[in-house]
Amino acid sequence: DLLNRIDDHFNDKPLNGQRWLITAGPTVEPIDPVRYLANRSSGKMGFAIAEAAARAGAEVTLVTGPVNLITSNAIKRIDVQTAQQMFEAVQSQFKGVDTFVACAAVSDYRPKVTAQQKLKKQSDDGLTIELTQNPDILKWAAEQNTAFCVGFAAETNNIEEYAEAKMNKKGINVICANDVSRKDIGFSSDNNEVSVYYKKDGALQVQHLGPALKSVIAQQLVSFLPGIK
Amino acid sequence: DLLNRIDDHFNDKPLNGQRWLITAGPTVEPIDPVRYLANRSSGKMGFAIAEAAARAGAEVTLVTGPVNLITSNAIKRIDVQTAQQMFEAVQSQFKGVDTFVACAAVSDYRPKVTAQQKLKKQSDDGLTIELTQNPDILKWAAEQNTAFCVGFAAETNNIEEYAEAKMNKKGINVICANDVSRKDIGFSSDNNEVSVYYKKDGALQVQHLGPALKSVIAQQLVSFLPGIK
Repeated sequence: DLLNRIDDHFNDKPLNGQRWLITAGPTVEPIDPVRYLANRSSGKMGFAIAEAAARAGAEVTLVTGPVNLITSNAIKRIDVQTAQQMFEAVQSQFKGVDTFVACAAVSDYRPKVTAQQKLKKQSDDGLTIELTQNPDILKWAAEQNTAFCVGFAAETNNIEEYAEAKMNKKGINVICANDVSRKDIGFSSDNNEVSVYYKKDGALQVQHLGPALKSVIAQQLVSFLPGIK
Repeated sequence: DLLNRIDDHFNDKPLNGQRWLITAGPTVEPIDPVRYLANRSSGKMGFAIAEAAARAGAEVTLVTGPVNLITSNAIKRIDVQTAQQMFEAVQSQFKGVDTFVACAAVSDYRPKVTAQQKLKKQSDDGLTIELTQNPDILKWAAEQNTAFCVGFAAETNNIEEYAEAKMNKKGINVICANDVSRKDIGFSSDNNEVSVYYKKDGALQVQHLGPALKSVIAQQLVSFLPGIK
């Protein structure tokens, strides 16, 4: 079956000599020492891809936001909190990377000001937080034109349309889209179902993976991606 | 020593027949299906108090935001996400409660509007989120005048001043204050150091606990609180 074929494939260590850089988890953008803005992400999908790539022989660096997950010794792990820190870590590790997989749920925005002391509740009813845009890590990566760039899109609607728009806007090679409005897959679930969008001779192609354990989806992805590079 | 005295004390099950209601963890306020606003809290302090109170013989209900912690079978656990859900759970469980310990890091504010679909990044540089105030669970509890109410204050500065102001404003009996600006204690640490503020004959009293493991602080608190009731 497919799993055995993948296992056989991995025994060949097909990614030997390749460098993969993977981001995972959420980013956390502090408002003050207690409050923060974040994106939902357990990190499970990104960690599974890192482990699968390492088992396939790649030299893997994983840049991750705060999650409750461990990594095997084969993986070089860099822990960060904010999108800016994740961007700096990716920049510092990008040289010589063959495949960049941006699986992290990066906050698009961060508070314009981070208070050094805890903000006290005001007496009036409302409060407004002004946000400013974070760097677009995946777009930066694609602009380097040195690595095969794979993005993830967590969408709740119009999935194919947004996936293609994201590919074109950021100039990336592949978008793995999942429907996070479904309770049975995505986010903290161990399961996922991913639609892999890529271009072949200028035409949009799609490969569906799952529903399956994230570890299985990760193996399938690591096996599938080199073929469309 | 103190620990043995506490253990002996617990063997007597001094809280037999008492009902304790405890809140723990952060609350998570969704902006859209992917983004949220939250407060830092591992839930460890509140969970430790729940376990200590149960071991001392109390019937314990724990209302908790999303955390990565387990509870023993002796504890009735209710999982919630938002401050509004935590408020409703506390209201539904409040009847017959002797001691209410509000250890959760409740978001003071929530987004005025929660988008049902993922918000798309705008082309311009900034974004503003309008927030509205959440219900004050601890203040509501104190207003019922039926339970001994214990609050927690996570402060970064002017700790004693804010603790007393919070006691007076909310009409609660005890404030346990900790300094979350310190890296060695508080938040996700297993250790804590707490200053317990309470009134005796109208005068502010303080009892310092720790630095010690949160489980030890919890035992000391559960042992100390009934004496100042």
